[in-house]
Amino acid sequence: MDKRFVTFLPAGVKVEVESGTDLLTAASKADIEIKAPCGGDGTCGKCAVQLKSGTAKARRDSHLATRLAEKGLNLACQTLVQDEDLVVEIPKTSAMSQHQVLVENNTLGGVSDALSNYLLHVWQLKELLLEKQESPLNGYPLNPLCRRIRLTLPAANLQDNRDDLNRLTMALRKETKCTDINVPLPVIRNLGETLRAEHFKVTVLLSEVGGKAEVIAVEPGHGHQPLYGIAVDIGTTTVVAYLLDLEKGRVVDTAGTHNRQARFGDDVISRIVYAVDEPDGLKTVHQSIIDTINTLIADLLVKQRHVKETDIRVLLTAGNTTMAHLFLGINPKYIRLEPYIPTANFFPVVKAQELGLRVHADALVFSYPSVASYVGGDIVSGTLFTDMGNAEAPVSLLIDIGTNGEMVLGAGDWLVTCSCSAGPAFEGSGITFGMRAMHGAIERLEIDAQTYEVSYTTINNGKPIGICGSGLIDCLAKLRCTGIIDRAGKFQTSLSTPRMRVGEAGPEFVLAWQEDTDLDRDVIISEADVKNLLRAKGAVFAGIRTLLNVVGFELDSIENIYVAGGFGNYLNIPDAIAIGLLPDIPVEKYKYVGNTSAKGACIALLSQEAWTEANDLAGKMTYIELSVGNLFMDEFVSSLFIPHTDLTLFPNVSL
Amino acid sequence: MDKRFVTFLPAGVKVEVESGTDLLTAASKADIEIKAPCGGDGTCGKCAVQLKSGTAKARRDSHLATRLAEKGLNLACQTLVQDEDLVVEIPKTSAMSQHQVLVENNTLGGVSDALSNYLLHVWQLKELLLEKQESPLNGYPLNPLCRRIRLTLPAANLQDNRDDLNRLTMALRKETKCTDINVPLPVIRNLGETLRAEHFKVTVLLSEVGGKAEVIAVEPGHGHQPLYGIAVDIGTTTVVAYLLDLEKGRVVDTAGTHNRQARFGDDVISRIVYAVDEPDGLKTVHQSIIDTINTLIADLLVKQRHVKETDIRVLLTAGNTTMAHLFLGINPKYIRLEPYIPTANFFPVVKAQELGLRVHADALVFSYPSVASYVGGDIVSGTLFTDMGNAEAPVSLLIDIGTNGEMVLGAGDWLVTCSCSAGPAFEGSGITFGMRAMHGAIERLEIDAQTYEVSYTTINNGKPIGICGSGLIDCLAKLRCTGIIDRAGKFQTSLSTPRMRVGEAGPEFVLAWQEDTDLDRDVIISEADVKNLLRAKGAVFAGIRTLLNVVGFELDSIENIYVAGGFGNYLNIPDAIAIGLLPDIPVEKYKYVGNTSAKGACIALLSQEAWTEANDLAGKMTYIELSVGNLFMDEFVSSLFIPHTDLTLFPNVSL
Ligand code: FES
Ligand SMILES: [Mg+2]
Ligand SMILES: [Mg+2]
Repeated sequence: MDKRFVTFLPAGVKVEVESGTDLLTAASKADIEIKAPCGGDGTCGKCAVQLKSGTAKARRDSHLATRLAEKGLNLACQTLVQDEDLVVEIPKTSAMSQHQVLVENNTLGGVSDALSNYLLHVWQLKELLLEKQESPLNGYPLNPLCRRIRLTLPAANLQDNRDDLNRLTMALRKETKCTDINVPLPVIRNLGETLRAEHFKVTVLLSEVGGKAEVIAVEPGHGHQPLYGIAVDIGTTTVVAYLLDLEKGRVVDTAGTHNRQARFGDDVISRIVYAVDEPDGLKTVHQSIIDTINTLIADLLVKQRHVKETDIRVLLTAGNTTMAHLFLGINPKYIRLEPYIPTANFFPVVKAQELGLRVHADALVFSYPSVASYVGGDIVSGTLFTDMGNAEAPVSLLIDIGTNGEMVLGAGDWLVTCSCSAGPAFEGSGITFGMRAMHGAIERLEIDAQTYEVSYTTINNGKPIGICGSGLIDCLAKLRCTGIIDRAGKFQTSLSTPRMRVGEAGPEFVLAWQEDTDLDRDVIISEADVKNLLRAKGAVFAGIRTLLNVVGFELDSIENIYVAGGFGNYLNIPDAIAIGLLPDIPVEKYKYVGNTSAKGACIALLSQEAWTEANDLAGKMTYIELSVGNLFMDEFVSSLFIPHTDLTLFPNVSL
Repeated sequence: MDKRFVTFLPAGVKVEVESGTDLLTAASKADIEIKAPCGGDGTCGKCAVQLKSGTAKARRDSHLATRLAEKGLNLACQTLVQDEDLVVEIPKTSAMSQHQVLVENNTLGGVSDALSNYLLHVWQLKELLLEKQESPLNGYPLNPLCRRIRLTLPAANLQDNRDDLNRLTMALRKETKCTDINVPLPVIRNLGETLRAEHFKVTVLLSEVGGKAEVIAVEPGHGHQPLYGIAVDIGTTTVVAYLLDLEKGRVVDTAGTHNRQARFGDDVISRIVYAVDEPDGLKTVHQSIIDTINTLIADLLVKQRHVKETDIRVLLTAGNTTMAHLFLGINPKYIRLEPYIPTANFFPVVKAQELGLRVHADALVFSYPSVASYVGGDIVSGTLFTDMGNAEAPVSLLIDIGTNGEMVLGAGDWLVTCSCSAGPAFEGSGITFGMRAMHGAIERLEIDAQTYEVSYTTINNGKPIGICGSGLIDCLAKLRCTGIIDRAGKFQTSLSTPRMRVGEAGPEFVLAWQEDTDLDRDVIISEADVKNLLRAKGAVFAGIRTLLNVVGFELDSIENIYVAGGFGNYLNIPDAIAIGLLPDIPVEKYKYVGNTSAKGACIALLSQEAWTEANDLAGKMTYIELSVGNLFMDEFVSSLFIPHTDLTLFPNVSL
């Protein structure tokens, strides 16, 4: 095969690829991530790039490609390297994020400023863990999934000539009260020498869960050797890893980055499609999350130089069901096909080396159990964190609005859960200028009721390049209360302001003029965008109503609403109530709980009791499949208005 | 490094080796096995070869080497290839056996005639299994360690949307009554497709032991797929493999060969020394038994062409404690050092691929549990076979005289066991013309009381080249009853026969004159040989007496004596009693039971109940360490006479 060079600007990174390779793949080879929400299907248009030198070939013609060509742009995923070297410019709007650029001058390292802000904010890392030294244990006892037990065994002699393995397991039984102790062959192989190196004094690395124990290693003597674990929240979009000192029960450091699987699409469905349909797709998508996590581990080890790869003896992940499948290399095919069956909800514990994770080869890898195809381990982890499964817990609602909208309603002994395919609108997907909470994203805005002039704040005070989720909700509320849209989201095109106009794709409202932005065009929100947002918020609210219906409760019986997830943190609750996304109950009942998936993962890693509880929770949660019956559909249709068709549900909202 | 060619005669096999390689290693590379009881130490002298062309270098001088040099011979283990190609002749006395030569014209294939005779004899394969179709189960139910369960799972739908794994394990629980079912990740990975390939009809390969089940594979549909297992008796000297049809509960075929570890010494001690002291020693010795077993598997598959490597889903081995350690790659160091502690007596179940066994990669490998360093899984297996652990069993003695002499005394709820380091004298080791039961071995002999003329029979009626174990016992009895030796084994050098003479190493008696042999010298037995044999027989008898002493029984309370092992089969019981090797009780109480280690392995592979029982037995057997106290030593010293110091113990022996 012929090889050609592709140089990507502005980074100036050059990569050699076979001719016939598409530019999205070439960029990924160069470790430059281009947005590709549709997974390289040529339908989302987010991967537009500009050919600065050389001729390439289009994979196929399309309306979208023709429209972009008029602006001098090409779809990276549809443009194939031919017999010439290429120079390709990636516009800001197509770049995944600014990791590469910002990596030097941020406090958390390896992540963008925006992301590190987010992490500090969400997990309140500095205050909560590093300065106040508060325990991440949330009341559970420190009893990590991997712990050291120091033993002094009776020395062998002609009278006590039990075999070494028996000598060890008998002592462990006594120490742990656990009778089902597995010692794998690699540990046994040199046990004789290990026991005798320090006269039958040994330190055993043990993982004890649910009455079963697994010996991970046996080391000679009682010396103090470091013992670390890593908790990973595998989000569809963002992956965050926590380095935990298992003996002190503390988070030592954290690192986050975007999920490299983004290359195969923004949502779980595109990832599944890629894994199932492409040759070696599952392997590729699986490897890409392993690579993501390995990058985070490497980041953490660079920052904490006293910790070695081999000091990390256990790893625990929480993620949605698809992420868990892809992480373990399990075929996710039936997750997206009716009746939506995951291959597994409870996952086996495996060794790090089986997955190629760069920690100790024999480290055990635990995966949070799921409840159903669309209620995953991240939600179970969140439920654990909120303590909703506690016998004394009042009726509470946990709601995690991310790429999907998952929620759990319950009180101690009952828990119902569902997932409404809200779509990733609040993460910016499917919205003309939607984007994640990165540099230059509009996060708050005001619209003058008289002049319709817009003022906004952006993340990092950058020139605006798009709108993130909290900005979109704010925007929706303000569009409505200034009368720019009606309760059904229809634009009042008759308004006399230049901001209101009819664009290519219908009515649109200008939020920022080109000269104020970092783009070559105005930042707008279109009627189609608004309809997408209404569907998203309607799905969430209909989900809440459906769960309440199933158990026969009213909105006002909810005592706590836990708002989880990265997006939740930036959410303005009154705005969210105003547009009918969240129930109209007193604001003081709302609690921001941050990345509960990550927090629950840390807790479970630090406490066997918590991990056992988490597994019980997963078994106890009743999954409500919203596509069965009309209950959800009826609620959904009624929720497509601002705030709702039934205004009595929102007595405090006046729009 | 320079490379040189070495050609071995008579086989004519040429091999390229680095200069500096010793001839023993070179031969092993050429797949030619030279005797090396001392493991290449240069002390046993059995590896003598003749340099036909080229010059080599001696590793070091020794008395033995000088003596051999006079006869034009070199120690293969001490002779190093230098800068010339060599041609080396291996004398018959130094060749390990005639496997290569005899392989074509024997009925079992891959083994020598002598060995195949042995196998047919011992296991009575033809009559017992192939013709009479008798079950090898010995009364246990057919319920193999790996079995197929055909399931039709309820199909998934929106009402029953449990995950696939749960669907499977729930059905298995119902079917097996087992609640602890492990499904490993590789099986889970494509479970979704497997279940749906034939509409939720699947066949599960399951291993269920002691209330725990492991899923080995899940296959779509209910088709009939072959299911085989392999039981292996790993003897120090000989390794025998049985191919079992797990569904029919039958032995399909068998193959045997010598243990390739012989290269590292005849007895377990030399093997341990090599594994512990040589660089990469453990790896080498471990690999050599894996290679041995792989050869046997290949043999079996050649003979049974309808069976494929991947049809073999489970493997079970029985061997002494050292063999079990080396088979699993466990450091055996402390087995030979006081207080003689094995690393493990109970071994974990591992996957075939972990060991590199050429059966299905996911096949489970079970290893028979041991009792102590010198009472291994082979003895536990034999005990299972004899049913001595049965609550109704009368007082019985199982005795296995092989490289060591192990025995078990017991009746149902009590079992005591010991091992007397008899040394491998009865296997021919340490005896001037000792050899295994191969072509040309003297197995019976008569000595005329007047003329002292000797008549003998040899295996295969070949010209004599040595004496095997049964021949040695016969010889000892005949030497004694003709008065050639006294009760203490001292030669009556005054006898007037040319057969009685004083050789290099003291008095000796000629059994076969050179012209009648296939050698360049006379076949003799020396006074030193007789002393070695007395020590060996004395150790066995002292062991029996010690066990009886421990439990307070007399010789005549023994109702059954099971004589096990390859050697046992050729043993003439009256001879053995006459020399004081076995107790003087009625001959009808003796039972030849053959290779009980192999038989017990087959039974356990075919029956979970038997396997569970075997594990119970191993836990229940009380090991008597003979080196503790004087009990054994006193008995041993009294047993160094023919038949014994205390003639009242042998009322029926008149010598
Ligand atoms: S002398 Fe060479 S192997 Fe023993
Ligand atoms: Mg999340
Ligand atoms: Mg044996």
